[in-house]
Amino acid sequence: MNQVTFNIEGMHCEACARTIRALLETEPGVKSVDVSFDPGTARILFDPNAANEARLKSRIEKPGYRVVDRAERP
Amino acid sequence: MNQVTFNIEGMHCEACARTIRALLETEPGVKSVDVSFDPGTARILFDPNAANEARLKSRIEKPGYRVVDRAERP
Repeated sequence: MNQVTFNIEGMHCEACARTIRALLETEPGVKSVDVSFDPGTARILFDPNAANEARLKSRIEKPGYRVVDRAERP
Repeated sequence: MNQVTFNIEGMHCEACARTIRALLETEPGVKSVDVSFDPGTARILFDPNAANEARLKSRIEKPGYRVVDRAERP
């Protein structure tokens, strides 16, 4: 299992954070997601055989948020 | 093809609306989605053989929004 934490720009409220979480949970291979509005982060635990960081980043950015940094541990 | 418009409570900003749209677009059978922050509505065009209203409503409500009404035309 892999873990990544993305720093995200563009979240305006807690509802944004909860909706990004729901969006990431629909991605195959994602095991758990924790999204925080302040600071703007998404910590994702995923199976690297079924998901990858590029696709997760793309899913976050589709509604207009920006992933500006990443780390493998929180 | 079916069309439904949901009235939604709990959207706080335009980013919420864009993220709900992305969330609905991941649902199988959904052909097009238009979500408006003000008024709070989601108009969804979907294939009734692959999607249904109950599942669409559930997807909107998972992050904490509430579907308070529906109409078959906008």
